[in-house]
Amino acid sequence: MIQKEKKLLMHVGPVNILDRVLYAGLKNNVGFTSQEFVEAFQFSLKKTRELFQADNTYQPFLIPGGGTSAMESVTSLLKEGEKVLVVTNGVFGDRWINIFRKYPVKVNVLSAEPGYYVEPETVEKEVKKDKYTLVTFTHVETSTGVRQPIKDSVKAVRDYVDLVVVDGVSSVGAEEVKAKDWRVDVYLTASQKALGVPPGLGILVLSERAMERLKDEKSIAGYYLDLRNWLPVMNSMENGKASYFSTPPVHTILMLSEALKIIIDEEGLESRIKRHEKVASAIRAGIEGMGLEIVAKKPEAYSNTVTGVVVKKVNAGNVLSEIVSEGVELAPGVHPKLQGKYFRIGHMGWVTENDAIVTIASIERVLNKLGEEIRLGEGIKATQLYLAK
Amino acid sequence: MIQKEKKLLMHVGPVNILDRVLYAGLKNNVGFTSQEFVEAFQFSLKKTRELFQADNTYQPFLIPGGGTSAMESVTSLLKEGEKVLVVTNGVFGDRWINIFRKYPVKVNVLSAEPGYYVEPETVEKEVKKDKYTLVTFTHVETSTGVRQPIKDSVKAVRDYVDLVVVDGVSSVGAEEVKAKDWRVDVYLTASQKALGVPPGLGILVLSERAMERLKDEKSIAGYYLDLRNWLPVMNSMENGKASYFSTPPVHTILMLSEALKIIIDEEGLESRIKRHEKVASAIRAGIEGMGLEIVAKKPEAYSNTVTGVVVKKVNAGNVLSEIVSEGVELAPGVHPKLQGKYFRIGHMGWVTENDAIVTIASIERVLNKLGEEIRLGEGIKATQLYLAK
Amino acid sequence: MIQKEKKLLMHVGPVNILDRVLYAGLKNNVGFTSQEFVEAFQFSLKKTRELFQADNTYQPFLIPGGGTSAMESVTSLLKEGEKVLVVTNGVFGDRWINIFRKYPVKVNVLSAEPGYYVEPETVEKEVKKDKYTLVTFTHVETSTGVRQPIKDSVKAVRDYVDLVVVDGVSSVGAEEVKAKDWRVDVYLTASQKALGVPPGLGILVLSERAMERLKDEKSIAGYYLDLRNWLPVMNSMENGKASYFSTPPVHTILMLSEALKIIIDEEGLESRIKRHEKVASAIRAGIEGMGLEIVAKKPEAYSNTVTGVVVKKVNAGNVLSEIVSEGVELAPGVHPKLQGKYFRIGHMGWVTENDAIVTIASIERVLNKLGEEIRLGEGIKATQLYLAK
Amino acid sequence: MIQKEKKLLMHVGPVNILDRVLYAGLKNNVGFTSQEFVEAFQFSLKKTRELFQADNTYQPFLIPGGGTSAMESVTSLLKEGEKVLVVTNGVFGDRWINIFRKYPVKVNVLSAEPGYYVEPETVEKEVKKDKYTLVTFTHVETSTGVRQPIKDSVKAVRDYVDLVVVDGVSSVGAEEVKAKDWRVDVYLTASQKALGVPPGLGILVLSERAMERLKDEKSIAGYYLDLRNWLPVMNSMENGKASYFSTPPVHTILMLSEALKIIIDEEGLESRIKRHEKVASAIRAGIEGMGLEIVAKKPEAYSNTVTGVVVKKVNAGNVLSEIVSEGVELAPGVHPKLQGKYFRIGHMGWVTENDAIVTIASIERVLNKLGEEIRLGEGIKATQLYLAK
Repeated sequence: MIQKEKKLLMHVGPVNILDRVLYAGLKNNVGFTSQEFVEAFQFSLKKTRELFQADNTYQPFLIPGGGTSAMESVTSLLKEGEKVLVVTNGVFGDRWINIFRKYPVKVNVLSAEPGYYVEPETVEKEVKKDKYTLVTFTHVETSTGVRQPIKDSVKAVRDYVDLVVVDGVSSVGAEEVKAKDWRVDVYLTASQKALGVPPGLGILVLSERAMERLKDEKSIAGYYLDLRNWLPVMNSMENGKASYFSTPPVHTILMLSEALKIIIDEEGLESRIKRHEKVASAIRAGIEGMGLEIVAKKPEAYSNTVTGVVVKKVNAGNVLSEIVSEGVELAPGVHPKLQGKYFRIGHMGWVTENDAIVTIASIERVLNKLGEEIRLGEGIKATQLYLAK
Repeated sequence: MIQKEKKLLMHVGPVNILDRVLYAGLKNNVGFTSQEFVEAFQFSLKKTRELFQADNTYQPFLIPGGGTSAMESVTSLLKEGEKVLVVTNGVFGDRWINIFRKYPVKVNVLSAEPGYYVEPETVEKEVKKDKYTLVTFTHVETSTGVRQPIKDSVKAVRDYVDLVVVDGVSSVGAEEVKAKDWRVDVYLTASQKALGVPPGLGILVLSERAMERLKDEKSIAGYYLDLRNWLPVMNSMENGKASYFSTPPVHTILMLSEALKIIIDEEGLESRIKRHEKVASAIRAGIEGMGLEIVAKKPEAYSNTVTGVVVKKVNAGNVLSEIVSEGVELAPGVHPKLQGKYFRIGHMGWVTENDAIVTIASIERVLNKLGEEIRLGEGIKATQLYLAK
Repeated sequence: MIQKEKKLLMHVGPVNILDRVLYAGLKNNVGFTSQEFVEAFQFSLKKTRELFQADNTYQPFLIPGGGTSAMESVTSLLKEGEKVLVVTNGVFGDRWINIFRKYPVKVNVLSAEPGYYVEPETVEKEVKKDKYTLVTFTHVETSTGVRQPIKDSVKAVRDYVDLVVVDGVSSVGAEEVKAKDWRVDVYLTASQKALGVPPGLGILVLSERAMERLKDEKSIAGYYLDLRNWLPVMNSMENGKASYFSTPPVHTILMLSEALKIIIDEEGLESRIKRHEKVASAIRAGIEGMGLEIVAKKPEAYSNTVTGVVVKKVNAGNVLSEIVSEGVELAPGVHPKLQGKYFRIGHMGWVTENDAIVTIASIERVLNKLGEEIRLGEGIKATQLYLAK
Repeated sequence: MIQKEKKLLMHVGPVNILDRVLYAGLKNNVGFTSQEFVEAFQFSLKKTRELFQADNTYQPFLIPGGGTSAMESVTSLLKEGEKVLVVTNGVFGDRWINIFRKYPVKVNVLSAEPGYYVEPETVEKEVKKDKYTLVTFTHVETSTGVRQPIKDSVKAVRDYVDLVVVDGVSSVGAEEVKAKDWRVDVYLTASQKALGVPPGLGILVLSERAMERLKDEKSIAGYYLDLRNWLPVMNSMENGKASYFSTPPVHTILMLSEALKIIIDEEGLESRIKRHEKVASAIRAGIEGMGLEIVAKKPEAYSNTVTGVVVKKVNAGNVLSEIVSEGVELAPGVHPKLQGKYFRIGHMGWVTENDAIVTIASIERVLNKLGEEIRLGEGIKATQLYLAK
């Protein structure tokens, strides 16, 4: 019972939240015009640029919702009849299709089998063939843990399309992200992933080229997710003055501000990415050490944030429910083509080497108990030897 | 400095949050599939029905965002070319217009001067004249504190339109609300108002008639705010099973659940409404006692949640900045026709008689200091005598 | 019910605690050797000197317990057969007698009637008559709210006795305290009074003369409260190194550290004392405005921290139980000579003008309701007019 | 840096505190007369009896301080000239000697070498030889982790002495404790050990025989730690009525109350002891698996709460400072005869199997890095295999 209460949340978001971040939201008298809130908003906007490695030519946005609302807000940049190309490696890549199909734009799709990504050359070929206003990529596909080689992918299309959009929901704060250097027009994420904040916020940066499109009053966007409505609030807040369009999640922004302070000013982005890489590698060492297979089909596709684990004999759902008693919560597999055959380990946010140790040890014991053929004790030993290097 | 730190937030949302509610969100390991979260979601859905005085024929929804996202989600019920009537008494009534103008529907408007509401008979005349698919009302107009006589207003149109929608953002939890008895099709609110929870959630109940419209795949709605996407999550959660469309604000729902437990099971809706009424009356007694005027033009238009206060000599903005040093934060006036001439007192959520006392005493001292002609000491005495009755 | 939940604690300690102070103790992994704890202890020791207006010739001590354990620790300075003089104005002055009577020392007593203090000249006369090793004073007698003119009292005896001890339990942090200038040998307080920290700590500063006595291994002290055992811990901690005698209340020290940061570095001692004075005066204005009598018999005896209020018709106990429903908790009268005839208002720690307003308004309404003859509305008006000055 | 922030505190008290327990103290308006406090005190007293497996013939006490203040309060039961026997296995057994030497009683001592305990027969022989009023035992000696076979030890002396006192500081809540069945007169502990509450409280139960001695006004005790002064408070609180002798650590008692609710009513004492036993065994399996030696010299002396680990090549102090970077804090060795040669692992309170895993993995990596000869990977594997059994 105590172990369950102290549960380690190795999930894909929300993840375990650092106490300091959580306590930053513990305010019973902060309103949307309160000085404390305005300062947290201002600070968050400035640090968001650093987070995406953008500069002052980029405009940051904090909008309510999360990854999906941030994705849909990209409609603010499109006009009726324009053509978009969706490059998808799984469920969240497909989400772009579902969004765009609700709007009067033309959608074309390039997709990969689960475990794989669409090769940059394939995308390059497509954008040379046809004129696209906008291309979307998914940096890390949360449903499988597959990482797109994003730098090369963006490079391959950059000169052939107006707008390049990257969904960095499972990458920003844990993988190398360089909005400016790579000339990405819209890079977006959500508060509850590698930033380790409760859910409630979509976070984006827009290039000058993207911002130019906001000047035109016309777009296919609705009201709440039209970035034009939020822009005056961002400008005012960045200048330290309260402003209102629709009430933002005040407490989540207080927490985001604390998280960004730790991420950028204390831990440092580079160290943070290295930490994620080390923990991810230690976990994969353990998975392979005990004799299991990873969903992502080659090391270049491994991500720092999500690892899909394939089970052969046991049902993935049983693993998930059983491991909660061991004080660990994992995420279900959601790719329709791999139904019941895998589970996901989320390893992002404030994840540590000790979390890797606990996760692998628990997975080992549970799989052993359920009858999966694994090498009990060898997974945890492999993780330990990796960490001792 | 200490007084500022202990500031009383007499705002229009977020408002002062009860510690118990705030602490309910203090969880560092709750994910969207966690049992604890599923239970909180389930409980919140059930209690939401009671909150709106709806029954099992009504479907509750908890969606990310707030009042505006809840309002825009009403587009899920409309098809291209349909006609809607917006009845508006101010800024937030007008918001319906701004939303609908983004969509391919026809919009007609009935509006009132600030301080007044559109008379039910006026609305009745209009719906008899023309065929409207949907009519919207604003129960309490947050920008002025004017309360629409909602029961009579709904009654006046009920038999002439398909769908009656009420924005209860500044009323639900503080005013009499009877979705079922009054046969309202969509009644909506937001977490940060009279429920006293941090912002982040739009909350709605839909009648059977409204739900019927969700069965049709076609609507003018986008993706994130299309209630069709959220419905399976609501159904699954109400049955105690985790489900996913897009990550909800997990911690805000944990807090909402605690708030609803207090509102429905501990304080009781009726007592809660009476408390709001008493505090609101005590505040107005103080305002009138010191010789000031209220924005709402007649007692029937007074609300339990927001009071607009007209100042004559001093600038309303100065009052707001000055009163923060007295440990009270009020809300700015936002109605464009009354620019700089009034400020608002939000009195909702967990507001008490003591809060009324502090608010009136602080307003008196600040106005006296700034040079407004008031009867110093008489406002607070009037509030006290009202409370002593 | 909500009003009760948000209760204002106008008590004599613990008092209302500032959230920032409370949250400083919200640490689940700080041990007595943890760096974070050592730093908080070190900081607290340094700031304790400033708090008492002592300098580096004074040694600060933080010991478990509170006022009484700090008082009894003074036995560390005494040897068998020595003679002490206790100057007492009430229950807590008498406590010195009860302590010393447990030890092999001779005790003589000078006492005042409730509402009065022992005049400095009376004490001077006594110390000239007989040889005392140690004299004790109570700066503010918590049982009645009577303040001893401490500067003059110490001056009157300073040259005739070895050790002057002042119980500053209800004064330190709220009244002028100058350990060094007045040449006090032991000045002590407790965490839960005007410092606004939870109870659990006795806090003392000792002069060089007092410290000299600790060098002698012999004293009448027991083990836990023998300051000799705690001295190496204080020295080590002040040098930034963990040390152990017996486990201190780690979390209370984390909170004390935050409180001292606010008191000394942010609010400033002088402002803090002025705030207490203003709030105390506003409360007394209200008490007199409604027509009630104060226990302390003359303005020179009024304290910044505690006010005893005499009731004539109603029972003081009923006032206390009734006022809790109004969201205010007061302290019972405890002086045996005034049983049932008075209650106490504690106004210390983080108390504000708004707290004075709420307290007076609530007392008025409750007394009016219970049938005490007061001028309803005039107390709160008097407080308001005092604050508006 | 993040790993340090999330540090696991495998210390001897304070230990890692469960969030629920910590949050129970997060109250800014609870005074010593507040209803909420009285209820928490009442509940704690009742549950304290169950905790010690005492019945209504036993009187529970909650007093400020901790283990040492509880130990010294035993002087309340002694008169000048009486004779006590101290049975000691280390530093905290010796503490009884230091306490009693401050008082006019005769003290005799039986002591064991570090790693060993005094055999019950040795004690039996002594109490048959001489007349002792009181004998003290230390159930688990915190300085070495050695457990006294307490049931047999008490049995060996029970019929030859008036009062049997057991220091259960490192045992209560984690080892089998049966005050009533074993006829122990005083069983005591502290809040910050196996109960997992912040430090600040000494907790005792006294048998009827012990209580009989409190009826006599005379004892060698001082004032603050004389149980006679606290008895009326315990009686009043148990009857649900506020009472005062000296301000107790209110917030610590609120937290104790929550902890006892979990310990007794939710987890259950038996399960809790088993959990401690399993975690302790898993840790020792790891220590032995990597090839290290334990301070306690035989399995019967192993405790559920503390394990001393002997290092050969490296300095124990270096292990402690190094392992903090791995996110684990351990306790220094304090037995003077083993200076620098061992460190201690505290495994009590809310400790879990996952904590055992992390602790052993971290110790392995740190010792490996520092150059101690261990079998890297074999310790963690042994712990894992033990847990998988």
